[in-house]
Amino acid sequence: MGQKEEALALHSRLRGKIEARAKKGAALTKKSISLLYTPGVAAPCMEIAGDKAKSFQLTGKSNTIAVISDGSAVLGLGNIGPEAAMPVMEGKALLFRELAGVNAFPIVLKTASAQETVQAIRAMAPSFGGINLEDIAAPHCFFVEKELQDLGIPVVHDDQHATAVVVLAGLINALKLAGKKFSDAKIVLSGCGAAGTAITKLLYYSPEFVPKKMVVFDRFGAVHRNNSGMPEHMKEIAQLTKNDFSGSIGEALKGADVFIGVSAPNILKEEDIRAMNKKAIVFAMANPVPEIAPELAIKAGAFIVGTGRSDYKNQINNVLVFPGLFRGLLDARAKRLTESAKVAAAKALASSVKPSREKILPHALDKGYVQKIVKAVEKASE
Amino acid sequence: MGQKEEALALHSRLRGKIEARAKKGAALTKKSISLLYTPGVAAPCMEIAGDKAKSFQLTGKSNTIAVISDGSAVLGLGNIGPEAAMPVMEGKALLFRELAGVNAFPIVLKTASAQETVQAIRAMAPSFGGINLEDIAAPHCFFVEKELQDLGIPVVHDDQHATAVVVLAGLINALKLAGKKFSDAKIVLSGCGAAGTAITKLLYYSPEFVPKKMVVFDRFGAVHRNNSGMPEHMKEIAQLTKNDFSGSIGEALKGADVFIGVSAPNILKEEDIRAMNKKAIVFAMANPVPEIAPELAIKAGAFIVGTGRSDYKNQINNVLVFPGLFRGLLDARAKRLTESAKVAAAKALASSVKPSREKILPHALDKGYVQKIVKAVEKASE
Repeated sequence: MGQKEEALALHSRLRGKIEARAKKGAALTKKSISLLYTPGVAAPCMEIAGDKAKSFQLTGKSNTIAVISDGSAVLGLGNIGPEAAMPVMEGKALLFRELAGVNAFPIVLKTASAQETVQAIRAMAPSFGGINLEDIAAPHCFFVEKELQDLGIPVVHDDQHATAVVVLAGLINALKLAGKKFSDAKIVLSGCGAAGTAITKLLYYSPEFVPKKMVVFDRFGAVHRNNSGMPEHMKEIAQLTKNDFSGSIGEALKGADVFIGVSAPNILKEEDIRAMNKKAIVFAMANPVPEIAPELAIKAGAFIVGTGRSDYKNQINNVLVFPGLFRGLLDARAKRLTESAKVAAAKALASSVKPSREKILPHALDKGYVQKIVKAVEKASE
Repeated sequence: MGQKEEALALHSRLRGKIEARAKKGAALTKKSISLLYTPGVAAPCMEIAGDKAKSFQLTGKSNTIAVISDGSAVLGLGNIGPEAAMPVMEGKALLFRELAGVNAFPIVLKTASAQETVQAIRAMAPSFGGINLEDIAAPHCFFVEKELQDLGIPVVHDDQHATAVVVLAGLINALKLAGKKFSDAKIVLSGCGAAGTAITKLLYYSPEFVPKKMVVFDRFGAVHRNNSGMPEHMKEIAQLTKNDFSGSIGEALKGADVFIGVSAPNILKEEDIRAMNKKAIVFAMANPVPEIAPELAIKAGAFIVGTGRSDYKNQINNVLVFPGLFRGLLDARAKRLTESAKVAAAKALASSVKPSREKILPHALDKGYVQKIVKAVEKASE
């Protein structure tokens, strides 16, 4: 049985990865039913009616988030709709619970516009202590996230921020192993969507991570300052990187120290890798098929190769980040995720392993790293 | 410690009554993570993208409902808002899980109109196999429920329909014990909101339960055909009951066989009960304070007395109905709840006990009755 068939068989057998269970101590007895339901339940209702903040003490809100998608940009599969996005949302909810003890309810939205998505999330927000946006296409994802920052609970688009954190953590360790500094590094990034935009912004946020030179590509070519027809988020990236280079990705890779791919399958060739600087770092994270097969990148002389997949060495996937990140935000009762909390999370993740070329970051199921992220985010969010 | 303090202490200790847990068989291992999350999860996503109906086989949808309120009519507490409604929604979710094995996610909505409530629920509907509307004020509750009947999954306002079912079941057994027929009975109902409207409509749906005479009261008096200024749902009730009586509830109760209260505390006196027919049936279900204290009703000669509370005999509460009702609808993959399924549920519930004056219906935690309702609803929904 191939992996696809095995995955289908398992999903078919499980019919859902998570379920709502009674909390320990909430079992039903003739006594408890009169406290947890009518008439006793009126008491916490009235307390909260008098002071909304008490919902963090008297309901599950302080440890419950929603994992929400409109199904417009699911994995590498594109706009497959809300129903088809659900297996991923359930998977995320499972990871939140198992890795960080966060209650996560998967919710998919059938909405016709970013504005409708905002309205639906705004309406249900009082139910949750945080909202994890997921698999929403750029540029809508930027609008949706920005509009919801006034909710008083963290609203985080995970494909942007958790991905940016894991890439920064990977770069910290990979550059260290290569004996290079951010300030000397030339970086080429392919894919100016949610992830690529957030990665670039996070690097430029903190002076210590600003590269010597960075060129970002979208599917139409280099994102540069002389192209006025681009969407807003790309204009911002062009300004941030101060980029005027308008050549091909192959040209840009000549002498580059780092390639970051969050774009499309098989866009690079061995010769592109060979043209890079010595001790080249290649993060080819398109999923499930990377920008270049890891075997080829290694054959072409790359020093460190990472992908988004769990079946290769060096999985650079936001699963390493989002459980601990939200656990930390919830524990701090943060109102939003800040850039400094993201930097703290990246440093904590990077410091959780003794890096080697074949293990620059922990495996998702390794012990200890989640708690390091939790502490760092909690501290940075105070 | 009084009941109120005890309820607060328990809610404070639990911080939520339910939690999202990994399903049995979904524990994370290096192998399972690659099947349940990336890259394996792409397979069920693509299957569902090709055929939405497969979401019932490959996700938790077939056994997951949302318990949704806008907080506009919570218990007897009124419009206390979404945050304050959450303890009740969590309580309902707990009961769904513990009594019928249904996954129920509690969601409260901050919406400014019934139309916004409809939009928010419509947006999130692809996540669920059913939606239980809860504690939404009349007349908005009628509009919201009606607008959502095209979703292809059952959308049920529980304060209407589960309450109507439990009252019908109670009446079936109470009238039997009193040796009376529906067709000979005079019924007085107080409270023409969600519950009162649904009870009346269910009685008049099936010829076998149509009373000889029924007069419904709202807070302003009898609901009769000569009052053209009433909201739509009351006009419908006036037509259904063919009522032209416009006197007081005290007058209406003279010679009545049944009183059904879904209204307000202490509106009846002993003399009202004494004026009723022999073997009077009194369901005083206002919560937490009934229309008349059960002790007084019994003292005044009532034959059978029920309330909505768990600390008196004969609790007539929709908790006896909604878990089994939804379990049956989900098992049948019903698109909506029909009147005939409600009648079937009421008959099943009534038949699940050998009724006596002090136990006309089972206790919520009794064994067996839920399964009887499940089977009846499943059969009636095919």
